[in-house]
Amino acid sequence: MKVVVLAGGVGGARLAFGFYRALAPEDLTIVVNTGDDFEHLGLRISPDVDTVTYTLAGIANRETGWGIAGDSFEALAALERVGGPAWFRLGDRDLATHLQRTALLSQGLRLTRVTARICESLGVRARVLPMTDDSVATKVVTADGEIDFQDYFVRQRCEPIVRSIRFDGMETAHPTPEVTEALSAADGVVIAPSNPFVSVEPILALPQVRGLLATKPSLAVSPIVGGRAIKGPAAKMMGELGLDVSPVGIARRYAGLIGGFVMDEQDAPLGSEVGSLGLEVAVAQTVMRSDEEREALARVCLALLGRVAPRNAPAPR
Amino acid sequence: MKVVVLAGGVGGARLAFGFYRALAPEDLTIVVNTGDDFEHLGLRISPDVDTVTYTLAGIANRETGWGIAGDSFEALAALERVGGPAWFRLGDRDLATHLQRTALLSQGLRLTRVTARICESLGVRARVLPMTDDSVATKVVTADGEIDFQDYFVRQRCEPIVRSIRFDGMETAHPTPEVTEALSAADGVVIAPSNPFVSVEPILALPQVRGLLATKPSLAVSPIVGGRAIKGPAAKMMGELGLDVSPVGIARRYAGLIGGFVMDEQDAPLGSEVGSLGLEVAVAQTVMRSDEEREALARVCLALLGRVAPRNAPAPR
Repeated sequence: MKVVVLAGGVGGARLAFGFYRALAPEDLTIVVNTGDDFEHLGLRISPDVDTVTYTLAGIANRETGWGIAGDSFEALAALERVGGPAWFRLGDRDLATHLQRTALLSQGLRLTRVTARICESLGVRARVLPMTDDSVATKVVTADGEIDFQDYFVRQRCEPIVRSIRFDGMETAHPTPEVTEALSAADGVVIAPSNPFVSVEPILALPQVRGLLATKPSLAVSPIVGGRAIKGPAAKMMGELGLDVSPVGIARRYAGLIGGFVMDEQDAPLGSEVGSLGLEVAVAQTVMRSDEEREALARVCLALLGRVAPRNAPAPR
Repeated sequence: MKVVVLAGGVGGARLAFGFYRALAPEDLTIVVNTGDDFEHLGLRISPDVDTVTYTLAGIANRETGWGIAGDSFEALAALERVGGPAWFRLGDRDLATHLQRTALLSQGLRLTRVTARICESLGVRARVLPMTDDSVATKVVTADGEIDFQDYFVRQRCEPIVRSIRFDGMETAHPTPEVTEALSAADGVVIAPSNPFVSVEPILALPQVRGLLATKPSLAVSPIVGGRAIKGPAAKMMGELGLDVSPVGIARRYAGLIGGFVMDEQDAPLGSEVGSLGLEVAVAQTVMRSDEEREALARVCLALLGRVAPRNAPAPR
């Protein structure tokens, strides 16, 4: 069964790792959000692509959710000493990834090829695909004006009140040929338990993606458990955007696009409400604390994919 | 006594440190070769400027002659793992200097200002001036064609036979206003025991520099001791260029420009030959193994500067 996972950073990476254990690597493609990508110190940084890559390579830092386990911060400390910015926490080994990415991009390689090379050198055998090779930048519209995503997320620690999210450059961006081919060839598509607003919706906003997704058995895993986000500002954002901070709110956000929905045992009483949206529901342990729990959740997803029909039949050729 | 030192990397930095101990910092300016500067991984690297800066800051690596003492190489090792180049040995803390320099340059600051900021943050109180803010690139013409200096120096370990040296961009380069002002205001100018061909002559090749130098009491310290270079390929280059590999060969190279010459005790028998070139000679311990020996050599230079006349009287105003 060929599966495409749409993923942002930490939550998406964890579930992607579960699929990496559950499937043959050639059957797994992870399409990763690049709306958080930015330039810092002249370096091109792709936080979500790196988190997924590091997680599949088995070198991700499990405590922080970003960077490489056991990384040192000598360069960052020295950078601060010479008056440079230290708000974005660059580990020494992590820095090497950004240096290499930036160097290869400046040689004219597409981000997709650069990512494939880095994955290969780190021994990652599944396909990690940036959603686009075009420049898309997530902007957070706050009460005090619009700010860059990394500014909101890292420097301001998600403190500003979010009024809306905008994807700068989306009007001219396209999914890569690799992404549309992977979606076309997929037997099922899984929306990972990533932040819907800033991790999943940039992918869904690209031309063709929603259309291709609707022709496949698909499901989403709720990133909201017991009224809270497993990681990151998803719950805070939902509240600020006036949405129901629950799996029901998530399910409504994706309804019409997906056929299945996986929610946590803690939220089992809400299952019938999600089901009333026309979704096939699976209740499972969704908080992935170990590799085994990651794999188990992937297997729940695979089983559910086998039971759901596409929202729309494929267009006749 | 206001002194300007013309310097390349290691040898120049050592003597500059001696002057830093012997003079009030406001009386010392080091004009540093930038012909070795290059771009690597998108970073702007200024090897000689950094060696001088790190040496004056007391953080230079004394064993290697480049980089920062006790630096780690986590980023470089990781870079190699993701397929990046490892031939140029970038320490983690050293990398921070290049990141900050590159970032400030891309903000539009001149290299001179960038260097001043980095010096200030590292507590260096003397003035370290890049010879130019323009792009000058030293090219080594070898039997097998022309190569970049860093390629020759680092990657090929100075193995190719040198036929000549060329400074790409020199025809349009200018010394900075800070450099010409420092030379104009100097009571004496010292050519450090750096490689004449690739460290000192790029500085001398800039417009105005030779003219200004000739109006000042000036001297050179021989980088050749006992027929060998204290550090680097100067002796090998001299031989390949058909020059006398001795302090006499060095003195001939600078004759007509300087008034004094400092050579090592080992070469004392050659003193009269150097003197016959019209140079005031001081024989001293020039191999600087300790901070005390650096300072002692600086004091020998200061004493000699007091005894030599400018080669040319200042032009009438």
